Order: sequence, then structure tokens, then C-alpha cells
Amino acid sequence: MSSELELLSRRFLRPGDSTLGRLDRPSSVPYDEDEEEGLTARRKGAPSLPQISRRAALAPPSPIRRLMPLAEAARQRGLHVHHLNIGQPDLPTPAPMWAALARHRDGVLAYGPSDGLPVCRAALRRYYAALGIAVDDSELVVTTAGSEALLFALAASLNPGETVLIPEPLYANYLGFATLLGVEVRPIPCRVEDGYHLPEDLDRYVEPGTRAFLFANPGNPTGTVYGTEELGRIAELARRHGLFVIADEVYRELVYDDRQRATSVLELSDLGDRAILVDSLSKRYSLCGARVGALISRNAEVMGAVRRFAMARLSPPVLGQLVAAAAAELGPEYFDQIRTTYRSRRDLTVRALRAIPGATCPEPEGAFYVMARLPVADAEAFVRFLLESFAIAGETTMLAPGNGFYHTPGGGKDEVRVAYVLEEEKLERALDIVTQGLAAFKAEAESAPAESAARRPAAARPASRGALT
Amino acid sequence: MSSELELLSRRFLRPGDSTLGRLDRPSSVPYDEDEEEGLTARRKGAPSLPQISRRAALAPPSPIRRLMPLAEAARQRGLHVHHLNIGQPDLPTPAPMWAALARHRDGVLAYGPSDGLPVCRAALRRYYAALGIAVDDSELVVTTAGSEALLFALAASLNPGETVLIPEPLYANYLGFATLLGVEVRPIPCRVEDGYHLPEDLDRYVEPGTRAFLFANPGNPTGTVYGTEELGRIAELARRHGLFVIADEVYRELVYDDRQRATSVLELSDLGDRAILVDSLSKRYSLCGARVGALISRNAEVMGAVRRFAMARLSPPVLGQLVAAAAAELGPEYFDQIRTTYRSRRDLTVRALRAIPGATCPEPEGAFYVMARLPVADAEAFVRFLLESFAIAGETTMLAPGNGFYHTPGGGKDEVRVAYVLEEEKLERALDIVTQGLAAFKAEAESAPAESAARRPAAARPASRGALT
Repeated sequence: MSSELELLSRRFLRPGDSTLGRLDRPSSVPYDEDEEEGLTARRKGAPSLPQISRRAALAPPSPIRRLMPLAEAARQRGLHVHHLNIGQPDLPTPAPMWAALARHRDGVLAYGPSDGLPVCRAALRRYYAALGIAVDDSELVVTTAGSEALLFALAASLNPGETVLIPEPLYANYLGFATLLGVEVRPIPCRVEDGYHLPEDLDRYVEPGTRAFLFANPGNPTGTVYGTEELGRIAELARRHGLFVIADEVYRELVYDDRQRATSVLELSDLGDRAILVDSLSKRYSLCGARVGALISRNAEVMGAVRRFAMARLSPPVLGQLVAAAAAELGPEYFDQIRTTYRSRRDLTVRALRAIPGATCPEPEGAFYVMARLPVADAEAFVRFLLESFAIAGETTMLAPGNGFYHTPGGGKDEVRVAYVLEEEKLERALDIVTQGLAAFKAEAESAPAESAARRPAAARPASRGALT
Repeated sequence: MSSELELLSRRFLRPGDSTLGRLDRPSSVPYDEDEEEGLTARRKGAPSLPQISRRAALAPPSPIRRLMPLAEAARQRGLHVHHLNIGQPDLPTPAPMWAALARHRDGVLAYGPSDGLPVCRAALRRYYAALGIAVDDSELVVTTAGSEALLFALAASLNPGETVLIPEPLYANYLGFATLLGVEVRPIPCRVEDGYHLPEDLDRYVEPGTRAFLFANPGNPTGTVYGTEELGRIAELARRHGLFVIADEVYRELVYDDRQRATSVLELSDLGDRAILVDSLSKRYSLCGARVGALISRNAEVMGAVRRFAMARLSPPVLGQLVAAAAAELGPEYFDQIRTTYRSRRDLTVRALRAIPGATCPEPEGAFYVMARLPVADAEAFVRFLLESFAIAGETTMLAPGNGFYHTPGGGKDEVRVAYVLEEEKLERALDIVTQGLAAFKAEAESAPAESAARRPAAARPASRGALT
């Protein structure tokens, strides 16, 4: 049943009009009136069995985690899998953070305040102050990582049925939260040839129900960093059309040119009450498991609503916050260090991908991702091929298929996302596997397309069970 | 602005028709067409400023945390405040859990799997197995505490505009999540005289858009424990009308009669695919800050959707899960111990409240709450009085006003919730303050109603900022 639903949801997601087109129907229309044969037949056979909601049926699986069972199978065949598919930093969580955790060893592990532990709030405000961004106590709520900050930002700015604009390719989980909240997504197509920077005319994407503009800066999956001119165009668009601007800045310090960090949406003075910052400590401190982030806005109405949303879920994780508070002990040299490490890896990654004949690979300005176009018709088939049928010296590589970062049907079919979260020696081996694997994949596709096509569907397993990360 | 919105939201919540009546309007109706003068005027003055969503404007503040600033003010006047208002256990988090935490002191604090760390999943399944409840690996997703399990359960079963039935008085945060998701709440009134057990005719509350029945067992705020007959009636109702049954069982082991624990919704064999269990380790292990819970269902479609929702937020808190996994090291004697402690406190609490002339106090079968009717017209005014104007030997007591646990306008006005989460000596003092404070409150109200009424509104401050828990 689960896999049937996943197929169904992908059917709606991919070739359909938009993720949530079906949510526009009045809620009194039951599923039985739909024409999905299997589902309808089964449901008609058991009339009093409740049906899951449409938002549940439409919820997309994570494209990053979807193929994990194939990686697990490869491991069980004895292969080592290099994970370039997931944004999990390999750099150690800073020592002061582990030390902070060690100081807590007994008593009651009690709720913290809904808007965050005072010690964590103070560390966050000090962090922004060091960037030159003054954040008033009333303007910040600590969240359960960037995910919850995003959930709250979308819920505060959009009603069910309203639309958020997002430059595409986009961070796939934006789609998951939009579905959960019944919000429509309208993608703004950006091209690999432009380094995934914004297209000229943004106004054409605004429609009557459009309420917000959401983007990641530095970008995920692209690594693209918007400069002040580009941010100014977003701000103007927002002012012209009365939009909220939701900025996901979780890779802020990972910028590899002279800027060293991305300009924050909070620094655009003309944006004021329109700006909502979604932030997370996960990437910049290798702290993904702590689940600590923040939502920040100068808009008192937004913050009032976010505080009430936060009350409903009582408290962000307390242990994670105690760890996060130790960020206050890290000086700017910490970011210099990790920036140097990631920049060198970026250079290596771009070099390797550009050396592939027929590949198009921009040099991303930030984050730890490269999005590249490969000379293949179906990049997901290539990703599967690497996991199922290719290895060098007992090792293979997992990439994230580009199609998972597109809401537009058919988008990203020839693209992959590479996360350079491995030390260089391994990274080099992992990318060599990609290069040689691609040659083998193309050779196989040319020599035996029928056999290869026949094998692939059988190997495609439902993705949700036991996914690693 | 924040306080204005809170007033507005309370205006909609309390005397209005239903929490979400306004969400029924087509989303193209902007706020400017509403008749809330101040809000409209301000918005008309700045036409291009974006407006927060209706679900944001309607999000209710937590009634439990709402009056916290008054407690903070009392502390700043030098008083000690006994917190009987919040369900934060005072019993220590078991030592094996802290020991589990101490074993993690370096490396990368990485994401865990979306559906939970294997070690935590195993501990949970062993826990249910010890209760005689077999939970298949596919039937469980670890969540960020009960709050997220509730969010996922509601989202999986209800679309925006559909209705969930909830026995009333109800756990206030149910309303918060319903608002976030655009779901309607229809309360089923239960009476203090019946010990807050279910009324006779449940069918009359079901309407065309009703899709789910949500309840807490043991109850919060009532402590009421449904027996198998009562659960059977819920199951029958669900079968007759095709409803999901969402059971919040976070106080499962806190049952003070021979049953020792509440029957789980998973044990109702005739419910099968209809049942969704919302669980949390917070209360039973004094682990509120860890933020670890679970959603369990035999329904493969529900679990498929919940897994996809879980992928969007990547991972539950990893440190909390490592702590939670140590639950496997605790034998049944742990629950015997805390049950004995809480039972004795319940007896003390019921005795004290029943000794108040004119009070009505059932003997709750479980949880660590007592809901009682006091001989006052406005229990919230009494709660404020204790914090603002009453003390014995430098101490006062905070209760939760009953009105916060009602969705029905005017409900619970003469009720309070008492959480017995203090050791007995302190609990006795805290309840003595309630008893004597009530006499003083009534004396003051009778002698100087005008003066008292004049003082109270000035002392009422907006509640969201800096609330403790």
C-alpha cells in the first residue's frame, strides 16, 4: 500500500499541473469520485474505512533519501558507498559544543521556554551581532532546526491555496512543507548556463494569490550566492506586490569569493517588515542532529504568530540548545577554517565535473553543493546504475538526482547534485567513480538499451523504509 | 502589535463560532474587507505591506503559558511560586538516561534517519512488546515528541476545512495544531459531575466533514481514564462514520486503580486501520526536554504519508533519542515507583480540593492532573489574584485557568487544572495557599468589587514574551 501511494503521489507531483492542484477541490469531494482505479476500487470495497487526507496522499518523498535503499543494498553486497548525495557535513562538531553537553549529567530534563533557552537565545543574538546584524529579543524564536523555522514562516505568511514563489532548482523539502500546509508552489526557472542566478523578469510569475517569495542564499542545491543587486530585485518585487520574503540562509558563511558570507535578508533595509529569516546551526557547526535553528523577523505580527505556533509544540530540543549555546565560544577563525576546507573541495569538485566530456558545471559561489548537467538523458538512471551495477575497487558513489529539486514536470532530468562533504582524497576517488561510471553507463546504454531498461524497474524499490538519512 | 493581535485572536477564539470559521472564506478575500477597525485602518494606510495569514492571526496562545509573565513578576517581587499550572514532572530523569548521554562526547553530531535512530526504534518496540502490544517495524515513526506526532496524525487524516471531534475539556495545544493545519475542531462536552467521562450520544456530534476523533487517555486536563466499554463506544462510532481515531496516550502508566495502565487504542482489535497512536516519552520518563515521541498505526497508507512528512523535516533530535533509548534498561519497577508517588499526591490533592466549601472535584483515575470546579464566577481572575495579590510566608501558587481547556465559548470559567508535580510537603503548602487564597479572593470581591475590577485589567499583560515553559 505504501509503495502504491508513493507511486500515486509521484504521479501527481511530476507530470501533473502542480503539487496541490487537487487541494483546490472542495473538501466534500471524496476520493471515491476520483479516477485512480486501484485506489478507488479498494476504497469502494470498504466503504467505512477512513481515507487519508489529500495532503497526505500528495506528500512527496525526499529525493535525497528516496534512493537510500539502493545504497543499503550496495553496502550489503560489500561495497563502500561514498555519500555525495546528502548535505551532512563530515567536519567534526566543534569541541566546545561536546564539552557543553558533558556538563549536564543529572536532574530533570525539563521543557525549555517555547521561544528557546535564554542561554541559546543569547548565543544566537551574539552571533548575529558579530555579523553586524542587531536582533532584538522580540525578533527571534529558537526553532527545531531550519525545518521548523520554514514550517512556521510558510504558515505565518500563507493560507491554504495561496502561492509561494521559489527559484528552481529548489531545496526539495520546501515542497514537503508546502504540501503539509496546503500551500501552492510556483517555481521560477533558473538555468545552469546562468549559474542558476535569477532570470530577468520576475514580475511575470506573480499572480493574484501569490503571497511570498522563498529562496535559499547561498543556494541549495545550486550553491549560487545572490549579490546585493539580485537581492535588491527580490526586495523590489516584494514591495511592488506586497509579498513576504522568506530567506533560508543556513549556509551563510560558506561563500568562497571575497564576500566571505552572504548578505542577509535582514540587512536589506528597504525590506523591513517583509523579511522572514529561516536559519539553522546544522550546517555551519556540523550540528545536524541537534535540531536547532531560528526564525527571525522585524515584523511584530509575524513574531506574535510564530510565538503562538511555538507554544503549541511547547519547546525546542533542550539538549541540542545546550550544545548550540557553545557557539558563543567560537571565534571568527572557526569559519575561516571551514571556509578554506570547503573552498578547496569545491575547486576539486568543479574541476572533476568539468573534465567530464559534455558536462556543464558552473562554479558555485557558496554552500557545499554543485549542481551539474551530465551528458545523459536520465540522470536518475545513472545514479541507480552507480549503486546497482558499478564499482571501482569495492567502492561506489551516491549522487542526488537533479529531478528531485524541480517542481516543474520533467525538470532536472539530466542534472545531479554533488555535496562535497568528504575529505579530498576520498572526494577525488568518489568523483573518479562518477567519471568512469558515466563512461560505463553510456557504453551499456548504447550497447544493450533493452536489457538495461528491463533491469531497472525491478531494482526500483519503495524508498521510505529504513532510509538512513 | 503583538498584543493587539493576541486580543484579536482571542476575540475570534472565545466568543466566536469556531476557531476556524474565518478560514472558510475564499482566500481571495483580503483582510482589508474585514471590519476589525484598528487592524483595517493600519493596513489600509500601508497597502503594499503583506498581511499575515488568517491561520497565523487565529493561532491561540497556550493557556498554560499565557499567564507566565505574572508569575515572573511575582518572583521579581521576591515570592516563591509553586507551579501547579504546568505538566512538567519534578521526578528526576532516570540515571541510565543521563549515563547514555555521557557516552557521546565527540565526532559529528549527524542527522539520524527520518523515522528514528535504530537504537531508539528498538527500545520503543521493546517497550510496546512488554505491554503485550506487537509493533511492526513499518508501523512506527519516531517523532519530535508528542507534539509532532499530533501534527502528523492530524495532517494525515484531515484536509483544511474538515473537522475533528475532541472530548472537552481538552488539551489546549490540540487547538494550536488544528489552527496551523486549517482543521476545524468540534468539542464534545463532558461534565465535571460525570468525572468528565463521555456523554451518552456521540453520534449527534458527527457531521458530513467529520473525519477523525481525537482524545487523550488518560486525559489531560482531566485525568479521566476511559475503560474498555468507553473505548468500544469510540471504536463503534468510528466504524459507523468512517472516522480515524487518534489517541494521545502519553500518560499511559499513570493509572491509579487496579488497571495500572490505560488500554491502548492499538489493543482495540476491531479498530484496526482506523487507529493512530500519538505517544511521547516526556511524561513517563521526566524527559520533556528531550523531545522524543512516536506515531504508530497499523494503517500502511497513514504510515507512508507520515514517513514522507518525516522526510521533509529530516530527523528527530538525535541527542534526545540517544537518551530515550536507555528506556530499554528500565524494568517495570520503575513505573510501579512513579505510580505510587503520583497516586499518593493525587489523593492529597483531591482531599485538599474537596475540603474547599463549594468546590466540585472528581477523583481522576490517571495522569497527574485534577480538574476542579471552584466556587467562583471567574477562575482566571482567581488565578491572577493568587499571583498578583496573595501570598503566605513569601509563597504563592500558580494554577491553570480552566477556560484554556475549552473550545466552547464561555466553557470552564469556574474551573482550574491542578498539576500535582511537586513533592507532598510542598504540594500541601501550595494547596493551602489555594484554599486560603480563595477565601481572601471571595472576601475581596464581596467587599470591594469596583476596586478589584479596576486593578485587574491593568495587571493583565500580553503573555507571549519570555514565558518560562
